[in-house]
Amino acid sequence: MDLLHALSLGDLLREHRRSNPLQIACVSGDERFTYRELDDRVNRLSHTFLAAGVGRGDRILWLGQNSHRLLEGLLAAAKLGAIFSPLNWRWSAEELAFALSDAMPTAVLWQQDEIGEQARKARALTKADALWIQHDDPGPEGYEARLTDAEPGDPALEVDPGLPVLALYTGAFGGHPHASLLGHDALLLQGLVVSKVQDVGRESIYLNSGPLFHVATFMTTMATFVWGGTNVFTPRVEAETLCRLIDAERCTGAFVVGPTLQQMVEANADGRYDLSSLRSFRAFPAWDSMTTPDGSPWGRRPGGYGQTELMGLATLSCLGMDATGSHGRPSPLAQVRIVDPEGVEVSAGESGEIVVRGPTVMLGYWRRDALEARRRAGDWHHTGDLGRREEDGSITFIGPAARLIKSAAENIYPVEVERCIAAHPAVAECAVIGKPDPEWGQRVAAIVVLRDGVEADAEAIVEHCRAHIASYKKPREVAFVESLPKRGFAVDHDALDRRFGGGGYPGAAAG
Amino acid sequence: MDLLHALSLGDLLREHRRSNPLQIACVSGDERFTYRELDDRVNRLSHTFLAAGVGRGDRILWLGQNSHRLLEGLLAAAKLGAIFSPLNWRWSAEELAFALSDAMPTAVLWQQDEIGEQARKARALTKADALWIQHDDPGPEGYEARLTDAEPGDPALEVDPGLPVLALYTGAFGGHPHASLLGHDALLLQGLVVSKVQDVGRESIYLNSGPLFHVATFMTTMATFVWGGTNVFTPRVEAETLCRLIDAERCTGAFVVGPTLQQMVEANADGRYDLSSLRSFRAFPAWDSMTTPDGSPWGRRPGGYGQTELMGLATLSCLGMDATGSHGRPSPLAQVRIVDPEGVEVSAGESGEIVVRGPTVMLGYWRRDALEARRRAGDWHHTGDLGRREEDGSITFIGPAARLIKSAAENIYPVEVERCIAAHPAVAECAVIGKPDPEWGQRVAAIVVLRDGVEADAEAIVEHCRAHIASYKKPREVAFVESLPKRGFAVDHDALDRRFGGGGYPGAAAG
Repeated sequence: MDLLHALSLGDLLREHRRSNPLQIACVSGDERFTYRELDDRVNRLSHTFLAAGVGRGDRILWLGQNSHRLLEGLLAAAKLGAIFSPLNWRWSAEELAFALSDAMPTAVLWQQDEIGEQARKARALTKADALWIQHDDPGPEGYEARLTDAEPGDPALEVDPGLPVLALYTGAFGGHPHASLLGHDALLLQGLVVSKVQDVGRESIYLNSGPLFHVATFMTTMATFVWGGTNVFTPRVEAETLCRLIDAERCTGAFVVGPTLQQMVEANADGRYDLSSLRSFRAFPAWDSMTTPDGSPWGRRPGGYGQTELMGLATLSCLGMDATGSHGRPSPLAQVRIVDPEGVEVSAGESGEIVVRGPTVMLGYWRRDALEARRRAGDWHHTGDLGRREEDGSITFIGPAARLIKSAAENIYPVEVERCIAAHPAVAECAVIGKPDPEWGQRVAAIVVLRDGVEADAEAIVEHCRAHIASYKKPREVAFVESLPKRGFAVDHDALDRRFGGGGYPGAAAG
Repeated sequence: MDLLHALSLGDLLREHRRSNPLQIACVSGDERFTYRELDDRVNRLSHTFLAAGVGRGDRILWLGQNSHRLLEGLLAAAKLGAIFSPLNWRWSAEELAFALSDAMPTAVLWQQDEIGEQARKARALTKADALWIQHDDPGPEGYEARLTDAEPGDPALEVDPGLPVLALYTGAFGGHPHASLLGHDALLLQGLVVSKVQDVGRESIYLNSGPLFHVATFMTTMATFVWGGTNVFTPRVEAETLCRLIDAERCTGAFVVGPTLQQMVEANADGRYDLSSLRSFRAFPAWDSMTTPDGSPWGRRPGGYGQTELMGLATLSCLGMDATGSHGRPSPLAQVRIVDPEGVEVSAGESGEIVVRGPTVMLGYWRRDALEARRRAGDWHHTGDLGRREEDGSITFIGPAARLIKSAAENIYPVEVERCIAAHPAVAECAVIGKPDPEWGQRVAAIVVLRDGVEADAEAIVEHCRAHIASYKKPREVAFVESLPKRGFAVDHDALDRRFGGGGYPGAAAG
């Protein structure tokens, strides 16, 4: 291991202990800890885990809501070379049990409040022989008592920053979730990039109001941690609580989306909370008048294309203020290509799978060797998503590329044709499948649901496609139905294949 | 090599070709090139070098002033896994010849304008069997003609970003300079950190007005390149030229210090140049009225502690707005410790050598194995500089720690005592040496030059020290002299040792 150039998350915490000892590292309810205190607590937690046999590569699961103890768990794992995995606390007992059986943890931190019942049921459903610590138990077996009892001092183990430190479960359509293993480097460097575009620094006070089992909030948590700023935790999204915390802690940033903005404006209708410390992108007048405009590149154009397997963003919308593409341009840490199913780069303007290389790419999936091998074919991370490089170099994200139709030599992604047909004013919903064709291999078929009281025939749908996408992608046949079969929120293409005779798809579908 | 997570400087250029094809990458005189054109030129230059036998680890020297061709040389080296070294064009023929003999280059890019005579003399002094290309030769043997003749297309070699790509010669007191080998990772990641604190992005237009054989300018060149911004090159610092370029190119940043500011204000006394695009930290009213305040953290407090061996900054002053220490706090990519000569960390408030770990630390010195081994003792980069960690975690840089006096068990750094004595109002200059002492090993002796017409005796000097630094550091004897012997600008401590009986220093002096 190259110690001279190493910088693990544990090293960064040690450095903050030295260089930011008196700075507030985290706030959670009535508790607040400086970086020195945080490091002390993380050291004691590390020793608790060590005593329970947690070693390099072992899993520590978090079965709770947002809390400073979640960050402590991550950092203790970091100091041991272990892997920390915050599970989705909205999952059912069965779903939690699946993740427990899959992850095979050596230690589990769990929460009684709100989700104690699921957690206990999940534990009963698995035979996992792990140390279970209730993080909100104030008694002698609880998290705080164990910290008090634990050995102090840094465990002082050498940890390679190339090792995984975080496992985030990510949904798979129609299957079990799988965990992306993300390395120290990925968290730290993505944090650096995000800090730049979101203008996060040592003076930032970030309200962790989005769930930390998702990468979206986690990126900014890390940006704040990297620079020695302050992370404020709240267990769940509750409009009035967010207002109160922003006011009390003078939060400069928060993860707040959509309807929550409106709820916060309503909760603060009488102006009892001062939200002026919060830099926020512009939404609507009542919100804008309570907050401060976010002048960062992110504030001017938030978002980009990303996924859990990339520790979040691979392209940044703010790098495409002048661009044709909807999702900006690649982050400086991401090499991005658009490729055909053989992995060959396609020309600008053509659709293909988005593949990525760089230091923020995951190290692999936990126990999904076959899927992992497919995803890293040719040493590029295959996102399973469809995108397009525009002539000006910018990127447009189209949608999941799970299915592919091959007609003659042409690759046709159903999602692209579906997007086109859905834009027809008469169409409420649609799906596209491939049907075996003796001459062309496959031919494109569309299954369309029309809007109530609107008419359109097959020819109109085909003409619409011809006008907007390459001619070879247009459907050869169109069927009209009352509704589409679903699996969760997603259209069940397999059911449509069975009903309308779809098949002949090339290769295996990407995971 | 781990291609999935790789990102070399060549990869970054390839990505810019794709994602920023039409963006201006560099401007030099009347020439300007987009990122696509820059990549084309770098590919042709790579093939020129390949044809001359340049391979992995081989050296390419730059013997010229600032130019877009310097950046091209670096990037061509990057694509080949070679090492690019821009020499100090102010060096004499003998100094250049030393570097040529030391670096043993396979290719040399040199300049006729202004420095052709030294370059030719240096070449004659060495037997280096290298390809010499005059970059400002418009003829058939010159740089441009060779690019035209060269094979196009990307050489498409796999280059590990852990390899060195840049060699910067750095001065050694009283000896030959040695070259720090800096890796792709170091350039790229330091660029990212600098882009954050200097607020450099895709929209930045950076005037490379400081010399690129120094790391100070190079850091921002890389910050600009990392985000796909525009680098503007000018061969040398000339006030009116800088004004003209800032006006014509709407430069947002520049490397301008001290007297140049005043010269630029004079050159622009009639306001013929519009410098309002330039973000600059505040200096004096006439300058401030011509430029725009730099609101970045750097603009509020520029600088920090760094050195060539660290690809520049290891601490950032802007992270210490509230701090006791003069040099802020460590950059997020640097672990910093203050250690005693045995490598043991000293307590806050005590002086010791600054040592650093992290991804921006050099990979080693070119052909200086013994020095390199000393510098990386215990897997920490030993800077050879003296610093202090303050109680609030911030860092104060004191000065070079080359000499150490050992009195009883105490380590005393002469530079620290010298700084203290020099602050006495009667003192013009001073130096501190260690003299062998039968009881204590060594004792501290001060040699002092008083200001004209001012009186002070030894007791006053000793009392002054007792009041400001630890008592054991105060001089036991004080000699008054008319002037101090010098070697260049630095006091010649060896000469003082000989004259005043200094000696008994512990171990070897750090390089």
